[in-house]
Amino acid sequence: MNFEQELNHLSVLVDQYLTKYFDQYDDPFENDILESMRYSLFAGGKRIRPVLSLAVAKLLSGRLDDIMPFAAAIEMIHTYSLIHDDLPSMDNDDYRRGKLTNHKVFGEAMAVLSGDCLLNEAYELLMKTALNAGNKMEHALNTACFIARTAGKSGMISGQVIDIESEGKAVSSETLKQMYRRKTGALLKASVMAPALYLDVSASIMDALNEYADGIGLAFQIKDDILDVESSTEKLGKPAGSDEKNKKTTYVTLFGLENAKKMLNDVIYKAVDAVIPFGEKAWFLKEIAFYIEKRAY
Amino acid sequence: MNFEQELNHLSVLVDQYLTKYFDQYDDPFENDILESMRYSLFAGGKRIRPVLSLAVAKLLSGRLDDIMPFAAAIEMIHTYSLIHDDLPSMDNDDYRRGKLTNHKVFGEAMAVLSGDCLLNEAYELLMKTALNAGNKMEHALNTACFIARTAGKSGMISGQVIDIESEGKAVSSETLKQMYRRKTGALLKASVMAPALYLDVSASIMDALNEYADGIGLAFQIKDDILDVESSTEKLGKPAGSDEKNKKTTYVTLFGLENAKKMLNDVIYKAVDAVIPFGEKAWFLKEIAFYIEKRAY
Repeated sequence: MNFEQELNHLSVLVDQYLTKYFDQYDDPFENDILESMRYSLFAGGKRIRPVLSLAVAKLLSGRLDDIMPFAAAIEMIHTYSLIHDDLPSMDNDDYRRGKLTNHKVFGEAMAVLSGDCLLNEAYELLMKTALNAGNKMEHALNTACFIARTAGKSGMISGQVIDIESEGKAVSSETLKQMYRRKTGALLKASVMAPALYLDVSASIMDALNEYADGIGLAFQIKDDILDVESSTEKLGKPAGSDEKNKKTTYVTLFGLENAKKMLNDVIYKAVDAVIPFGEKAWFLKEIAFYIEKRAY
Repeated sequence: MNFEQELNHLSVLVDQYLTKYFDQYDDPFENDILESMRYSLFAGGKRIRPVLSLAVAKLLSGRLDDIMPFAAAIEMIHTYSLIHDDLPSMDNDDYRRGKLTNHKVFGEAMAVLSGDCLLNEAYELLMKTALNAGNKMEHALNTACFIARTAGKSGMISGQVIDIESEGKAVSSETLKQMYRRKTGALLKASVMAPALYLDVSASIMDALNEYADGIGLAFQIKDDILDVESSTEKLGKPAGSDEKNKKTTYVTLFGLENAKKMLNDVIYKAVDAVIPFGEKAWFLKEIAFYIEKRAY
């Protein structure tokens, strides 16, 4: 199987799980909120986070069925954060991935609530999964706790706060790095570490995956900065050049385009190096790292 | 101890726990989001929900320390829902309990994020509590799952959706009841049932508490409808008469003020009757029910 095929295979598995998961609900009083949640959850996201979880599960010889609920919960958390980020009071984006954002379709109130509901649903799923995990209950719960930390004030949310507070201001590279580590890196780290925590692997394996996750997390954000300068609105499915417009500090404004590209390449290779000990089995994780570097949107 | 003293005693315990809980955090990158979260969490709420949890814990001879994390998490969930409800895109309220609402002080973006963060924090706390509950892990997790269900699409959030969609429309008493059961009743039910679930009490005790919770949940909302007509903006700390202004269907508009009062009295007595089997020990739960009926704000 080549990279495209495996990527497609795993993301289809995620889609199937999420579709089935939401099909279990049919209370008429919940139809409208579910429609709004589904709209954003199935808006054509690349499913990078849940795919990473499944890929790490395979690498560690775990069962995909065991890891899928964690992967799906992370995707729900990611989706809620996008819905709220797009709100007029936040980034005020009308389009994402070429489709109207949630509040443009369902209105602002519903967008706030469907974001809230996706976050709540993620935890319902995580806790239900732990409750039904039998003798793996403690590991499942430990995994869920880790995900919650990466999503909350020590992770994604404070990253978003730093981002908002940094707009139009000169920001140090240290603050920028903190922002990226939290805003994007934290949930990507949860995606990579969730299977390792659930399967309770050795410290050396944890360390290797942790370094890999650090690398791709930072790479993801540096690449975003580069794309904002180099790509087009059409390709991105959202306005290109918005960093300059919003006077945001990025790797490109701090270090220049060529240096940013070099730094991107460096962190990608650090990530790839980290998984060398896994040998051949790590091929897909390496390819994902290169995919993050090369992606055009 | 009389009612006022016990109410005060338990709410002070909740305040102390929440204060200590947030004092453990001191990362400078998290200060701003924590300030916004604290502002609303310590904005003078009556702490009815966590007090109910502690009162039921006492009734069932449980340890208050064991139940406190659940009580505190419910209060965090309640507070997040208020912050988001007050947003301009939702109820657009400038004041709550006589104080400026979160978005009036910190801005809309921060209000969205601090609401998100309180919800996330509630689940971090619940899951950490379960993880450290030793041989009570399963009961703790089961309790947390129940709370999540009452907070999500089958509970509070869909209640809020029905509320938004009902504005300016004629609403049946059946829909109104569903809305109230979900919007306010669900989280009050979680408050009452959490200690019972954690302590894993008998089915007959569960049933009695369930009926009590149903009663006070509905009573709370009918009383809100009555207060909106009978009280003043000054006493309420939020605009009186807003239901009429927003053309909302309420118990008062559906059944008239006098009938609404009679129905309130009926559900209060049903709630009080439900806890008769507990004898003298249930005195405080009965008093809370009467307090909900009599409260002036």
